[in-house]
Amino acid sequence: MRAQRVELFVCPMTTPADTDGLQALVDSGKIKPDTLVALVGKTEGTGAHDDWGRVWADVALREWTSKFLAIPVTEVAKQVIFVLSGGCPGVITPHIVAVTRELVEVQDEGPHGGADGRLVVGRAGSDAMSPEEVGRMGQIRKVAEATRKAMDDAGLTNPRDVHLVMVKVPGLTTASIKDAESRGKTVVSHDLTFGPEGAGAYANDAAALGVAMALGEVPESALSDAVVRRDWDLYSEVAMTSSGGEKRHGEVVLFGNSSTSQSAVRIGHAVTKDFIDAEGVRNALRSAGLHFSSGLPSETELSRLVHVFAKSVIPGSDQIRGQRITLLDDSDAYQIGKALGGMLIASVTGRTANYVSGGERNSHQGPPGGNIVAAVVRAD
Amino acid sequence: MRAQRVELFVCPMTTPADTDGLQALVDSGKIKPDTLVALVGKTEGTGAHDDWGRVWADVALREWTSKFLAIPVTEVAKQVIFVLSGGCPGVITPHIVAVTRELVEVQDEGPHGGADGRLVVGRAGSDAMSPEEVGRMGQIRKVAEATRKAMDDAGLTNPRDVHLVMVKVPGLTTASIKDAESRGKTVVSHDLTFGPEGAGAYANDAAALGVAMALGEVPESALSDAVVRRDWDLYSEVAMTSSGGEKRHGEVVLFGNSSTSQSAVRIGHAVTKDFIDAEGVRNALRSAGLHFSSGLPSETELSRLVHVFAKSVIPGSDQIRGQRITLLDDSDAYQIGKALGGMLIASVTGRTANYVSGGERNSHQGPPGGNIVAAVVRAD
Amino acid sequence: MRAQRVELFVCPMTTPADTDGLQALVDSGKIKPDTLVALVGKTEGTGAHDDWGRVWADVALREWTSKFLAIPVTEVAKQVIFVLSGGCPGVITPHIVAVTRELVEVQDEGPHGGADGRLVVGRAGSDAMSPEEVGRMGQIRKVAEATRKAMDDAGLTNPRDVHLVMVKVPGLTTASIKDAESRGKTVVSHDLTFGPEGAGAYANDAAALGVAMALGEVPESALSDAVVRRDWDLYSEVAMTSSGGEKRHGEVVLFGNSSTSQSAVRIGHAVTKDFIDAEGVRNALRSAGLHFSSGLPSETELSRLVHVFAKSVIPGSDQIRGQRITLLDDSDAYQIGKALGGMLIASVTGRTANYVSGGERNSHQGPPGGNIVAAVVRAD
Amino acid sequence: MRAQRVELFVCPMTTPADTDGLQALVDSGKIKPDTLVALVGKTEGTGAHDDWGRVWADVALREWTSKFLAIPVTEVAKQVIFVLSGGCPGVITPHIVAVTRELVEVQDEGPHGGADGRLVVGRAGSDAMSPEEVGRMGQIRKVAEATRKAMDDAGLTNPRDVHLVMVKVPGLTTASIKDAESRGKTVVSHDLTFGPEGAGAYANDAAALGVAMALGEVPESALSDAVVRRDWDLYSEVAMTSSGGEKRHGEVVLFGNSSTSQSAVRIGHAVTKDFIDAEGVRNALRSAGLHFSSGLPSETELSRLVHVFAKSVIPGSDQIRGQRITLLDDSDAYQIGKALGGMLIASVTGRTANYVSGGERNSHQGPPGGNIVAAVVRAD
Repeated sequence: MRAQRVELFVCPMTTPADTDGLQALVDSGKIKPDTLVALVGKTEGTGAHDDWGRVWADVALREWTSKFLAIPVTEVAKQVIFVLSGGCPGVITPHIVAVTRELVEVQDEGPHGGADGRLVVGRAGSDAMSPEEVGRMGQIRKVAEATRKAMDDAGLTNPRDVHLVMVKVPGLTTASIKDAESRGKTVVSHDLTFGPEGAGAYANDAAALGVAMALGEVPESALSDAVVRRDWDLYSEVAMTSSGGEKRHGEVVLFGNSSTSQSAVRIGHAVTKDFIDAEGVRNALRSAGLHFSSGLPSETELSRLVHVFAKSVIPGSDQIRGQRITLLDDSDAYQIGKALGGMLIASVTGRTANYVSGGERNSHQGPPGGNIVAAVVRAD
Repeated sequence: MRAQRVELFVCPMTTPADTDGLQALVDSGKIKPDTLVALVGKTEGTGAHDDWGRVWADVALREWTSKFLAIPVTEVAKQVIFVLSGGCPGVITPHIVAVTRELVEVQDEGPHGGADGRLVVGRAGSDAMSPEEVGRMGQIRKVAEATRKAMDDAGLTNPRDVHLVMVKVPGLTTASIKDAESRGKTVVSHDLTFGPEGAGAYANDAAALGVAMALGEVPESALSDAVVRRDWDLYSEVAMTSSGGEKRHGEVVLFGNSSTSQSAVRIGHAVTKDFIDAEGVRNALRSAGLHFSSGLPSETELSRLVHVFAKSVIPGSDQIRGQRITLLDDSDAYQIGKALGGMLIASVTGRTANYVSGGERNSHQGPPGGNIVAAVVRAD
Repeated sequence: MRAQRVELFVCPMTTPADTDGLQALVDSGKIKPDTLVALVGKTEGTGAHDDWGRVWADVALREWTSKFLAIPVTEVAKQVIFVLSGGCPGVITPHIVAVTRELVEVQDEGPHGGADGRLVVGRAGSDAMSPEEVGRMGQIRKVAEATRKAMDDAGLTNPRDVHLVMVKVPGLTTASIKDAESRGKTVVSHDLTFGPEGAGAYANDAAALGVAMALGEVPESALSDAVVRRDWDLYSEVAMTSSGGEKRHGEVVLFGNSSTSQSAVRIGHAVTKDFIDAEGVRNALRSAGLHFSSGLPSETELSRLVHVFAKSVIPGSDQIRGQRITLLDDSDAYQIGKALGGMLIASVTGRTANYVSGGERNSHQGPPGGNIVAAVVRAD
Repeated sequence: MRAQRVELFVCPMTTPADTDGLQALVDSGKIKPDTLVALVGKTEGTGAHDDWGRVWADVALREWTSKFLAIPVTEVAKQVIFVLSGGCPGVITPHIVAVTRELVEVQDEGPHGGADGRLVVGRAGSDAMSPEEVGRMGQIRKVAEATRKAMDDAGLTNPRDVHLVMVKVPGLTTASIKDAESRGKTVVSHDLTFGPEGAGAYANDAAALGVAMALGEVPESALSDAVVRRDWDLYSEVAMTSSGGEKRHGEVVLFGNSSTSQSAVRIGHAVTKDFIDAEGVRNALRSAGLHFSSGLPSETELSRLVHVFAKSVIPGSDQIRGQRITLLDDSDAYQIGKALGGMLIASVTGRTANYVSGGERNSHQGPPGGNIVAAVVRAD
């Protein structure tokens, strides 16, 4: 039988257009045109809507990938999924993670059976989503369907083996709103931002609920247009989602562990119980396989850490453990909220090259007040 | 003999002008006109130069204190030292700490002798500082002298018993620069900000070196005008300083432990080795007397924590543990740097009502890249 | 018969709590307890949701007024309408305008009949508005009713004589949303901000449409919940509105000209055709009575200018006169948009103590892309 | 004899990397490899130190130019001077201006003799500047020398014919400071920003004084290290300067009018008397040749306007015409100051595609409180 061998390569970037790290991986034979499945990273810049650092990184990385794969730039998206999250405030090192997957022939189930699975990755695209579906059940169902396909592509059948689902979906634009309304349809919001009633927030949250539906975290019967960004008790513990106006289809890249995998690494995840919960971060490390029953991981254990993916959604309440904070009133909350997530991770792991996205207020990505943390470690 | 009994009361504030917590302490007899020696706190607002939240808090607290002490507002500063640090970005709860001190008659050295000292506090004012002394040896020497007086007022003779020295000194203003130059003197900077060459930064750092000189952390022979904000290897591990243009004298409030103290609380401190060093925070808790030889403090131990005072100076380097960060380039670095310090403390203690000042780049307050953390705990 | 004599006194403020200018007016007999009808001004600070400069100013001015009127602070709002707009970015001088009105006995219609009316002012409160009415027809109708009452109080019958209607209405809060939903009602938005879909923006715009309805600028038949913040062709040319969560009733202060008025000043208004239309500002000066048929007003004419009230709503388009601007993408757009309005006025009048509110995107306060400018001048 | 024919082509940009406008000019034959002498423009982005919009624009424009000229990217700077100013806050349209110059054979002095000169352009590089010269007399003298060479290249001998001198000079970097100090030299500042004592500000201002010295606006005898950023009465009325740490040489591009020029356009300039002085902008239009003795230019006259270049330096005082403003205290002053300059120009010209740089506090570029405005118009 054929089994996956998945690897993650973390490349710090010195500018948004820095592809030297990736090129070095190519030159040393670590990534090949047919093994590169995703580029996931944090780009420096404002992290805002018009973040030219992120846009430039996207252009530069696509050009590089196009040359590497020897295909036109417009074809790159069909082969490699890009998840670039803008903004590295505080202690977040700009970096790109190359995710590679090769299929290797194995005799039987391989040596990693049972509870000790290893990393697999699956990808899938969704059907096209119309503007009137954005932030609503149409988007939820199409993401759920794509998530199931990505599980299938990963060779996973048990949702409990899934630890991270990164999703990109269409948002709304002035043009797509006009299109929908010209056809007599309504849209979920006229606010194009990621604010509390913003179309971007609705799209992200519908995508998260789609993952939750696919993985059985939320029953389909509990879902409707009316619960999106209203019923925060419905959420996924593994969905990290983003949206962009220019897209028409959803894209899913899903990470889990499989007993058949031949990877040297495995993944785990946990959720924080609130915004300052360092123990939630440590639980993610434990889930991934770092050994420390209580207290702190040793430097030796930490040396097995490959990467951390974390959300840093701002709590919707002005209280943390009964004490008031003023973050909700802060005009810089988006930046500061993201920066604080970076500190929470770095202060536990001692590493700053972490994928931390967030800054928005409330989300179906993780429980109310808490956030998702996934970790990939080298198996011991 | 007479011994100090010092207590700290932490009052969360719901607005910058909220004195309800203080009034409740008065009403319950916990603070009295002759025991209140300092009000130290974090005020909500921008934390910037023109932070009206801080200014309003200052006005409201002085008015309240004036009524409480039954003295004119202009006399308040002579009896109670105010240290208000503006800006509560992220997870810093706006609050005020009332520091009280009463002298009690004891038979002999008291029950707290030996290594297990208890909290004492000392205060002192400095001689007037001229504009041309700001940020230079003149200011350093006058702060050193006031620090020695404050040690004396605290009843301390060994610098090792000193764990926190809060200092306020004069900075420069357009008017004071004009005054100095009209007398043929130069001033340290024409930049009135807290930027890298700002007069505010020079004043704060001269004050820190003054503390370091008084406590023997830096020999006087190593000090000169030329080392201020140049030789970062010279620093205090216990000085937290601030400056304001309107002042003419320095003010010092100094915290330490004494074997004669009858206080129920004690203080300790440590420095972080870098910006993400949670272990440095834990070391401060250990220094103050929380018991956890390795790993994490238990909730029971944490329940003895009374307050944390921390600096969050931004490192002058763009590297943390060999990884690049972009904080130095960030136009919001001042806010984000302060917020990150708040997260580092809160993620360790589980409490957000911490005194965290900072955001400036480089300082003689703490070692290069690291920061000072002091903690007060209830003795077990 | 009794006729109004209205005066405006512009007092620059040196801090948010500066009442010296008002006190000087009292001391010189220019304002009296029974003549003060409104305090309208710009307060320094961030201009954001948690602008402590504005809050402090509000507290300080109410305390001052309470003492001046010898009534409790809680009664002040019944006698004097406060319209404080936070944020003085750029070239906007912090100031407060005291509006006084006295009734004087005149023989007959007085000397100012015909087209050359003089300033009158009227005030009115509205019925209580429930959370479910905010941003909807309920609020529109209640503001319309209050506007009619304020016209009546001003002694005006022709809407064409009305040149400025300042309105404050309830917005939404977390608590009022919960209240409405617990009663099975929906609210217009869960976004509490002044963003494109924010409850604050809906409240302000419903208030503007209420003024438009009362003055016949928009027929009632054209109004419905569905047009608020959707159909920008419906607007008032004289409404400047604001909202706050803590309020339950609307308040209206209305300015117009009346032939019976004994005032020394008169008011006029115009709208700008787009965001850079200085001629629109000049048209407002002409409307108020400055004489300059074309070109620029002379310094002599400008010396008759008493005050300018202007909105600076950001256009919803990224085009001005066919050229692209990036203001819609700017995270500082709220501040910059307000600042630019201040420059547009100051560059025409040579004065910086102008009332300029704005920064929000799109509004029924003024035509699409344009803004309202009202001016008060001393009659020649 | 050979005479210059200079043209300016203003190309709006839709993204920082948009070269479509330039390419269209090439395709239509309007710019040729041997006529392109400078690219001057405003790029969208933050306008801050780490503005990736500006960096991306620089990379993209150099790549485009490299292909257009068929030379390596590293050679581009030798043939085409780039002056890219980052940040388009408010009503500044992102754009690039291609400056072309061809030499044409004329019979004699040509038809444009006498007072009615036409546009000429001159370029020159300076000798290398060491770090210890930055912001001091060394830099001043080398810029003066390069300015004289650029006048020569423009064919101008009378400084009164010079209306705009754009200069780029080396600033300081961490590395260059270390280099200087290792050789026993001091540098002007350790602050690498454009703040009041920042090395960037010193470099820009030394460059401005260099222009002033070359053009006789300031006598060499009045110049010394000590006057830079101290004596604001010394200034140029035509210098617009910028600096960058990576450079070693200064670059000058100088615009003036010559009676021998065969250009269809001419240039003029004026200075504003203060930050809100729209008449100063109109004076620049008049100086360039728009006809309107008083009042406002007609639309017909404005249709001859080709481009405006303006500084928007923030005044060092908190007073404008006797009224207080709070801009000096504003943490967004850099952005807002630039935006206000854009509004001042646009409100006079009705055009938003203006070159407006600024936001810094005080400068030798223009008189105290005022700013430089240069305009290019099509001759009538």
